[in-house]
Amino acid sequence: MEIRTDYADGNYTIHVDYGILEASISEYIAAYSSVHFLVDQNVYALYKDSLLSFVQHPIILEGGEASKSFDAFKHITETLLERGIKRNHLIVVIGGGAAGDAGGFAAATVLRGVDYIQVPTTLLAHDSSIGGKTAINSGHGKNLIGAFHRPKAVIYDLSFLETLPHHELLSGFGEVFKHALLKDEETVRTLMDATRTKISLDMMKPFIISGIETKMHYVTTDEKESGIRKFLNLGHTLGHAIEYKYRMPHGMAVMLGLYFMMYASNEKAARNIFDLDSFRQYFELHGYPLEHLKAIDEVEMMTLMGKDKKNQSSDATGFVLMNDFGQCYFTEIDSNQLKKYISQLKESL
Amino acid sequence: MEIRTDYADGNYTIHVDYGILEASISEYIAAYSSVHFLVDQNVYALYKDSLLSFVQHPIILEGGEASKSFDAFKHITETLLERGIKRNHLIVVIGGGAAGDAGGFAAATVLRGVDYIQVPTTLLAHDSSIGGKTAINSGHGKNLIGAFHRPKAVIYDLSFLETLPHHELLSGFGEVFKHALLKDEETVRTLMDATRTKISLDMMKPFIISGIETKMHYVTTDEKESGIRKFLNLGHTLGHAIEYKYRMPHGMAVMLGLYFMMYASNEKAARNIFDLDSFRQYFELHGYPLEHLKAIDEVEMMTLMGKDKKNQSSDATGFVLMNDFGQCYFTEIDSNQLKKYISQLKESL
Ligand SMILES: NC(=O)c1ccc[n+]([C@@H]2O[C@H](COP(=O)([O-])OP(=O)(O)OC[C@H]3O[C@@H](n4cnc5c(N)ncnc54)[C@H](O)[C@@H]3O)[C@@H](O)[C@H]2O)c1
Ligand SMILES: NC(=O)c1ccc[n+]([C@@H]2O[C@H](COP(=O)([O-])OP(=O)(O)OC[C@H]3O[C@@H](n4cnc5c(N)ncnc54)[C@H](O)[C@@H]3O)[C@@H](O)[C@H]2O)c1
Repeated sequence: MEIRTDYADGNYTIHVDYGILEASISEYIAAYSSVHFLVDQNVYALYKDSLLSFVQHPIILEGGEASKSFDAFKHITETLLERGIKRNHLIVVIGGGAAGDAGGFAAATVLRGVDYIQVPTTLLAHDSSIGGKTAINSGHGKNLIGAFHRPKAVIYDLSFLETLPHHELLSGFGEVFKHALLKDEETVRTLMDATRTKISLDMMKPFIISGIETKMHYVTTDEKESGIRKFLNLGHTLGHAIEYKYRMPHGMAVMLGLYFMMYASNEKAARNIFDLDSFRQYFELHGYPLEHLKAIDEVEMMTLMGKDKKNQSSDATGFVLMNDFGQCYFTEIDSNQLKKYISQLKESL
Repeated sequence: MEIRTDYADGNYTIHVDYGILEASISEYIAAYSSVHFLVDQNVYALYKDSLLSFVQHPIILEGGEASKSFDAFKHITETLLERGIKRNHLIVVIGGGAAGDAGGFAAATVLRGVDYIQVPTTLLAHDSSIGGKTAINSGHGKNLIGAFHRPKAVIYDLSFLETLPHHELLSGFGEVFKHALLKDEETVRTLMDATRTKISLDMMKPFIISGIETKMHYVTTDEKESGIRKFLNLGHTLGHAIEYKYRMPHGMAVMLGLYFMMYASNEKAARNIFDLDSFRQYFELHGYPLEHLKAIDEVEMMTLMGKDKKNQSSDATGFVLMNDFGQCYFTEIDSNQLKKYISQLKESL
């Protein structure tokens, strides 16, 4: 399966399937005079003798968020330079969203920008590898230093997903679910039906592809997030605060954030757009820790949300809410109102 | 004097004159909800009670290259974030080319890009502040990590130049001279006439403006340096190697590089495009240390030039040479040839 982006120029292809990596990548590599592989250490340990046996002399990235520190950024760029990287070389980044963000930022900045290919290896990275956002973390919050740098291709070999720990699958599923919400009610229903008893990989491929298409629609229409790209932050405003506070995998925190979004959307619209009971049962059945929502501290969450880089003012907090499945709007909720929503939500649980 | 860039979109104005900073900048600041000043420490010390008395709570950058380290990058971005920078704020960078590069890179990457204004305070920065290139230094060479990020304006208040040490004036003049060479013989002659006895600020303004116009022509035609922007590297290939080896101010090293460029251009064309004797006398009269050219080691220089990020192959070195005043071409010189040129140049001095 191949999906092509739809920018005015600088388009790229997203290849999605099982067992496609080596064949797909060799075509790209052929066009460059040299290639540098940046590989998540856990992924390399698991696949160096199988899917990644063709990878020569990789630069190993610490697994997960550790690759998104300033020190790791320095290490990655200095190693690329030590190896004599030139502007006509290619960088291939293999790993989850964290490796993709860190490797992508290195590719964006070394020699002021070198071509790169994303090879996502987690379910969540069906989201993070699309759209050209790259970043590292600051002491003041996640993803606060970064760049927009589109890859030359995304090669999403679903075979990698088989070794994903279950909580990482759940995390990635948070974004799959968000993309379904952004699309329409039909997609949400089908997805929930397909996962009625458990969330597993077997049924995931069509939803991954649909998720990629949804994300692509938003990022090609509004690359730099001045308008509708913001809608991709559905569930993320509170999600980020929860992720930060409870050190929970990104997509799991997003799922909690989505639940709050549903609650607030119902309140704002003064009607039941979302049947909260059924969503709560569904989330709890699959192990999303809604109990954390009961324990959150209103003021602490509001402080953390105020630091979110998408929030441009400090007295009100910007939120993406929904009028209906597939219909987002952006709104600012003032502090009193927000505090009330959070308290009510806690009581309702 | 105002010069307007000529991109397809995202244009900005370059304001050049004496005593214009405070008035010009207030118009821009008015459009933003907050402003953060990044100021070179030497410039702040000199002007905090005069030209910069309106600047509140600046973030102080170490003077010169020290502001272009990884550590300084971390310090600048973390301080901006600590101060609560948002996407709708403005950054104003005040200082020489180094502060401009470092502050510009911070502006390019914090929150994935915030608007900024360049306020150059050195003669050299008439060059570095135009064109949107930003960078920090690597252990493997200068400017190897960076981004393209156009300023929203350049406010070049020539009053700052009065405190510039003479060697910094000479350094900046190297780029003024390069821009004259890139323009035409007439401009070079007029410039040399105006500086027959000494290089001083009095006569500089028209040449600064002409230099800015020349640079702008190249950067707007070819922002990302895939073609003619390379011509701005006239004199820089050997210049960078000399700068690195002798820790000489950038533009002084460039002037030495320009002399080598003239030599090699004459050789390549097998005719006297440049009257080397007269240029040598002129450069020496003004204190450009041509004697370093006599002492350079061919192999060392070639190794350093091979590391230049503009050099995409390793057996030959890319150079910009001239067929005539104002007429550049790009060529690769193979190692043997290059070694011969350098040896011959050394003997000729
Ligand atoms: N750029 C964007 O648009 C964007 C969007 C969403 C999220 N993100 C970022 O993505 C990151 C989260 O990504 P993630 O959830 O993929 O986390 P991750 O990259 O941290 O990976 C999670 C863990 O799984 C391991 N892993 C990766 N692939 C594996 C595999 N195939 N088998 C076994 N283990 C594997 C990793 O080593 C890591 O320990 C966050 O840093 C977030 O900020 C970026
Ligand atoms: N981005 C580009 O396109 C580009 C182009 C050329 C050069 N550069 C970069 O520019 C830098 C060189 O710039 P530079 O020559 O301005 O050097 P600089 O910024 O290092 O300044 C030189 C010294 O002069 C001091 N200074 C600055 N303004 C002063 C003033 N008005 N009075 C007294 N002292 C003052 C500084 O503190 C510093 O000590 C290099 O890092 C080079 O890589 C960038």
